Amino acid sequence: MDELLKKVRKFREDREWDKFHSPKNLSMALMVETAEIAEHFQWLTEEASRELSEEKLGMVRDEIADVLIYLVNLADKLNLDPVRAAHDKIIKNIEKYPRDADSTFFKNNS
Amino acid sequence: MDELLKKVRKFREDREWDKFHSPKNLSMALMVETAEIAEHFQWLTEEASRELSEEKLGMVRDEIADVLIYLVNLADKLNLDPVRAAHDKIIKNIEKYPRDADSTFFKNNS
Amino acid sequence: MDELLKKVRKFREDREWDKFHSPKNLSMALMVETAEIAEHFQWLTEEASRELSEEKLGMVRDEIADVLIYLVNLADKLNLDPVRAAHDKIIKNIEKYPRDADSTFFKNNS
Amino acid sequence: MDELLKKVRKFREDREWDKFHSPKNLSMALMVETAEIAEHFQWLTEEASRELSEEKLGMVRDEIADVLIYLVNLADKLNLDPVRAAHDKIIKNIEKYPRDADSTFFKNNS
Repeated sequence: MDELLKKVRKFREDREWDKFHSPKNLSMALMVETAEIAEHFQWLTEEASRELSEEKLGMVRDEIADVLIYLVNLADKLNLDPVRAAHDKIIKNIEKYPRDADSTFFKNNS
Repeated sequence: MDELLKKVRKFREDREWDKFHSPKNLSMALMVETAEIAEHFQWLTEEASRELSEEKLGMVRDEIADVLIYLVNLADKLNLDPVRAAHDKIIKNIEKYPRDADSTFFKNNS
Repeated sequence: MDELLKKVRKFREDREWDKFHSPKNLSMALMVETAEIAEHFQWLTEEASRELSEEKLGMVRDEIADVLIYLVNLADKLNLDPVRAAHDKIIKNIEKYPRDADSTFFKNNS
Repeated sequence: MDELLKKVRKFREDREWDKFHSPKNLSMALMVETAEIAEHFQWLTEEASRELSEEKLGMVRDEIADVLIYLVNLADKLNLDPVRAAHDKIIKNIEKYPRDADSTFFKNNS
């Protein structure tokens, strides 16, 4: 991830894209990129979504890459470390959804 | 990231959430989480989005964490390494948007 | 819909919200609102999504309303009639996906 | 809108697409379509978003149409009238954001 952050920074600096990369714009682009992942899955059954063709998997891989790149860019602009943030969030989630409560989350959300 | 992947796996296995975590559902949840980031920015000017309050920044940090967690989950279900995918994608992007073409991307997209 | 457009306009004018309602911001808010609909469905099976509880249906109804309100706002800002646009689009779609081709769309997209 | 609903129904029935059109799938497709609107605006300034070229406006018009078509489809599947839902929601919003409170909504959300 450190290596990725360096490449992401160099890429946007080489192209002088910083002026476009406000956190607002990046949050929008991030959402748009996740939609491009979802587009591959929207008409599939859940089962079919587990068995993508090689070709489709390659396309989804590229979209996942785009999402991670924008996420790294956004976090960088906000001076946040996304991996550390995720570690901290998992600790919060463990408290919020205790093991013995099992699928509470989904029950609450269904 | 390896450490994060281990924690993410353990978290969902402890709670038996695998049954909900089809790639289709994860792609949907990923998009919903990015919307929660964007919600913080939607009425802000680009300038204001660069100067978040400590409180708001903390909330955005949690949402960024959620996006990364779902992205790691989705990639794991598809047997993909998201960081490697991002490295490969940057190489493609360097070819697609050469340095001297500068802001071509934004021109094409505006 | 004409009545709705009048109410939507009056609502935002009474509150002087026009300054926030750039097409850019409205397109972002529109996406965020559709995520609030999707949030209700993300962990449900397709079957369960057809049989919502009364309570959940009421919540989804409110989110659908929000999406329509933002869509009407956005179209109004761009001087577009969304209903007429939809009629025109269906005519295009009929040409693009002829009846006898049946589920071509989904085949192409799966 | 009544005319639009009739056309939307006939379109999907002629193509036997009902089997794909679970509320879950439609909510996903709806979100993906709003992302296609947002994609046109993501790198624009708010100001530029108010002054689209004719060509770009035509593309946005088509995307707005798609969003409305999916919204009508989704509401139909849930036996909801989206226009009536929007009228009811505006009444709720008037109570929630009283006129004299002016821009409270944006203050709360910024």
